[in-house]
Amino acid sequence: MSSGEPPAVVALGGGHGLHASLSALRRVTDRLTAVVTVADDGGSSGRLRRELGVLPPGDLRMALAALCGDDEWGQTWSRVVQHRFQSEGELHGHAVGNLLIVALWELLGDPIAGLDWVGRLLGAQGRVLPMASVPLDIAAEVEGADPARPYDVSVVRGQVACALTPGRVRAISLLPPDPPASPEAVRAVWEADWIVFGPGSWFTSVLPHLKVPELADALLNTSANRLVALNLAPQPGETDGFSPQAHLDVLQAHAPSLTVDVVLADRGVVADPADLEKAVEAMGGRLVLADVAAADGSPRHDPERLAAVLGEIFLRGRTS
Amino acid sequence: MSSGEPPAVVALGGGHGLHASLSALRRVTDRLTAVVTVADDGGSSGRLRRELGVLPPGDLRMALAALCGDDEWGQTWSRVVQHRFQSEGELHGHAVGNLLIVALWELLGDPIAGLDWVGRLLGAQGRVLPMASVPLDIAAEVEGADPARPYDVSVVRGQVACALTPGRVRAISLLPPDPPASPEAVRAVWEADWIVFGPGSWFTSVLPHLKVPELADALLNTSANRLVALNLAPQPGETDGFSPQAHLDVLQAHAPSLTVDVVLADRGVVADPADLEKAVEAMGGRLVLADVAAADGSPRHDPERLAAVLGEIFLRGRTS
Repeated sequence: MSSGEPPAVVALGGGHGLHASLSALRRVTDRLTAVVTVADDGGSSGRLRRELGVLPPGDLRMALAALCGDDEWGQTWSRVVQHRFQSEGELHGHAVGNLLIVALWELLGDPIAGLDWVGRLLGAQGRVLPMASVPLDIAAEVEGADPARPYDVSVVRGQVACALTPGRVRAISLLPPDPPASPEAVRAVWEADWIVFGPGSWFTSVLPHLKVPELADALLNTSANRLVALNLAPQPGETDGFSPQAHLDVLQAHAPSLTVDVVLADRGVVADPADLEKAVEAMGGRLVLADVAAADGSPRHDPERLAAVLGEIFLRGRTS
Repeated sequence: MSSGEPPAVVALGGGHGLHASLSALRRVTDRLTAVVTVADDGGSSGRLRRELGVLPPGDLRMALAALCGDDEWGQTWSRVVQHRFQSEGELHGHAVGNLLIVALWELLGDPIAGLDWVGRLLGAQGRVLPMASVPLDIAAEVEGADPARPYDVSVVRGQVACALTPGRVRAISLLPPDPPASPEAVRAVWEADWIVFGPGSWFTSVLPHLKVPELADALLNTSANRLVALNLAPQPGETDGFSPQAHLDVLQAHAPSLTVDVVLADRGVVADPADLEKAVEAMGGRLVLADVAAADGSPRHDPERLAAVLGEIFLRGRTS
């Protein structure tokens, strides 16, 4: 990164967590790439991948909407792509942007070209890429899926099943097990100044990137700094009872050689900062505690607060 | 119309006929308004009006696509809005632009604002308006709908039923019978230099405008010149065996006080020019015979030929 230029940042995730990190990151840099999970099998996305054999578009759509332009044009088209039909009929629940993305894929025959066109439509400040070029399924090892046998481990297939199954996820893998990475996503990781993991559904949105071989190789070996943004609250069915340290533990369990430069956590959710600090240092990084949660007490990140903290971290990383 | 300015033209119709007239008119003027029928009850449009209670968007979408910009942006979005999903599932047959238009209607609560946004997306050279602000049905008096009783007249309700019923349509009316016109469409007619009727499905796309009271009043009493562009071939189920004169006859039967300035017909389809000329003169106009059909012999207008002839007619109208 040359001096004076904003950092090139790659944000990894999916769904609402990625929407939150992008809403903050767009205030910090215009050199922004979202690399998005493609394992959703529920809702509008699940129906589209089953009906048309395409990548699930929903997480990609939500990331694009987070990057939309600030003007009336960008705001209006963002509302359009996020709009969901409500009816008693066949369109019920479909998000308009999902249909638009899929139509562009069918027309252009190239997922990335299609996403770039929707990005242009929205005046997106950054680029949105799928982490893999084929639709994926998540297979989760779940402990206590059957409440009568709380220590048994079973394998649950699919993101929806994973979210609906009680118990705690211990590990995930991908089906197919060696999916082809999106080459543009791999390149963005190699060329980045910062990689941002999370926030988001830890097992289904943050970890899957580490299970795509070529992408994992880039994530582990890029010269970019790595930042982990921890969640504000555990997620039912996925990370019930997980401490902040436990989130780092599973990250390391899925990618043992992963080192991090910064772990960012909200001051309000860390019961024992010293313990967490030790865990972070063991991964090679430093802990940053800050107030990044929304002021209303809801478990979501405040984009401006998060942007301010990330901006400072990136600036310090650059001068150090 | 001030000298040197291109004429303000209002084109009436729906479906492929209107697409043909707009494809020609856009080459002649950038002051172009399409006023489009909203009585379709078939296909993607029919499903959307039944599922979501909206105006049928298909004819509006097709008119917008005809006006799309010439650059890569306009061409690409035009292909997107015209794209139809093909599947074994619930999206099969839906045109993407129909879904986009309907989403904008739901979001903005205003059919015309929604159409203007799609027009901006396409870089449309002109404006597309619905002829009425509520969905309509066509009721057609059909002669010989039952082949066993060829002279009996029955009433067929709905555009699809009308197209599928054998026999000849004698007259149409609208349900509801006094629909509210789109005020913007009425204003465009009052302010126009030229009104273009047809080509298109005579009973279901060209005549309905004369059955919307406020719009009919404007069409009959505007100071604009009126041009009727006759079809290149009769339409099965609607105008089987209709001569060019018969097309004018039904126009006059539906709007007895209608006068026209020009009737444009392809030289190849007029068997008896003298007879047609008499009919045109009886309506106050002059007949223009020209080669406006596609060179390949298919029954569709060639946009460039049609544009050249219309341009000449408008120029002569302006200096006379």
